[in-house]
Amino acid sequence: MTTLIAIGGAVNFEEPTIFEEFVQRAGGAAARIIVLPQASSLAATGNEYVKTFRKLGVKKPIALEFRSRADADRKSHLAAIRGANGIFIAGGTQMRLISLLGGTKFEEELIAAYRRGVVIAGTSAGTAVQSKVMIAYGRGGATPRERSAQFAAGFGFTDKVIFDQHFRQRDRLGRLAYAIAMHPGALGVGVDENTAAVVEDDTRILVRGRNAITIVDGKHMNATNVAEITNARPVAVSGLMIHVLTEGCSFDLQRRVAMIPSAHVE
Amino acid sequence: MTTLIAIGGAVNFEEPTIFEEFVQRAGGAAARIIVLPQASSLAATGNEYVKTFRKLGVKKPIALEFRSRADADRKSHLAAIRGANGIFIAGGTQMRLISLLGGTKFEEELIAAYRRGVVIAGTSAGTAVQSKVMIAYGRGGATPRERSAQFAAGFGFTDKVIFDQHFRQRDRLGRLAYAIAMHPGALGVGVDENTAAVVEDDTRILVRGRNAITIVDGKHMNATNVAEITNARPVAVSGLMIHVLTEGCSFDLQRRVAMIPSAHVE
Repeated sequence: MTTLIAIGGAVNFEEPTIFEEFVQRAGGAAARIIVLPQASSLAATGNEYVKTFRKLGVKKPIALEFRSRADADRKSHLAAIRGANGIFIAGGTQMRLISLLGGTKFEEELIAAYRRGVVIAGTSAGTAVQSKVMIAYGRGGATPRERSAQFAAGFGFTDKVIFDQHFRQRDRLGRLAYAIAMHPGALGVGVDENTAAVVEDDTRILVRGRNAITIVDGKHMNATNVAEITNARPVAVSGLMIHVLTEGCSFDLQRRVAMIPSAHVE
Repeated sequence: MTTLIAIGGAVNFEEPTIFEEFVQRAGGAAARIIVLPQASSLAATGNEYVKTFRKLGVKKPIALEFRSRADADRKSHLAAIRGANGIFIAGGTQMRLISLLGGTKFEEELIAAYRRGVVIAGTSAGTAVQSKVMIAYGRGGATPRERSAQFAAGFGFTDKVIFDQHFRQRDRLGRLAYAIAMHPGALGVGVDENTAAVVEDDTRILVRGRNAITIVDGKHMNATNVAEITNARPVAVSGLMIHVLTEGCSFDLQRRVAMIPSAHVE
């Protein structure tokens, strides 16, 4: 099974159920967990996650700390990815990761690892990079506006979903709706902070955590003027289907249908 | 024809095209325009709108200034409504208007005026009160949460639409989605600031102004746990249809279909 865990940022470290799920899915205490801190501008990020995963019982989590393209493809780095059971991509700025790793052998190994079942988790920027069509930059606000998001190619573990993160907390529905008006074949998945979208086999999304994920489906979009609007003016778009899903809910990516657990009847 | 002009608040007084449209629809310079300032806590509000409408060429706009239920049904007030061509409801707090006027003869006259074709415009709180199911209070945020909106009966010029205002500016999609999960038969219409939804004959919405209106349609909603959730936790809701519409777009309330002008081909 392939597994992505796309976290919306700001996990509560006092109640790290999402990290626990990542560790569990990667194999528990014996899992070989690799942390990629490159999106972060802070030198301490890698070690902080290593400490966090140790606290959760993982015996030997390792942070791969390098900051130049020349260092990316070192044999020890490639071997670490080849031996991993779980890879955790820290937050920061998604373009740091992509400009560092895009086109490298390291990137190829990451994608190969995902395909053979290594559990990939990321938070914030580490969620954005999981999409093929990645939101590189953007602006908040509930109304879609021209150029409210700019795109770049992410690692592309999935090409079915465009992730956005800090979703409710940074008021990003407008830019995600804009992204879907621009890419109506993809599905927008906005992940709130301290919340995760777990994607199994690129066919099913499970919701974990305290807040919600917002799915924007452009399949029924019947009109938009996205190609005509200029100067950051609002974009009109008709027929976006929205699903707001909380812990326990799931979404079928093939049928594009949400499952919400029915009322508990006693 | 019946006409509602639901303005999202914060009209730009330097570029008052929405006020101009109200005046025009009410009959222009000779229109008998009545201002209702009761939602506002500021004594000057009525006079400010009187000045604004005078600047736009209206000869004798009148503000009906009273603040007690006992005064509402004075003969002169009822006569003013009976003689009006246009009624403008200022912003402030919607419950001030409703607690002052609910159940009065004055309210009956307002509704009768609307039905015989008097143009009703309102901004902010003056938009909220136009709905039958009115959002009385609420909280911002893109995720629908339990009790993120509280309801009360508005004047009810329309029972097809639940208006919300300052929509994008106060991040109110969550509370409007919550309102529609609670009232799936109604249509949520979130109006941005300096923007208006013009409702003709309770069947067609036209968009005017600088920003957008966001329509939330619950007709295709296939599941929600809104009845089960407690303690302001996020509510799951699947299948809300969203339309973001800008100036020049329209919406057919009967077929629930949006029209976006097609690209201009030269």
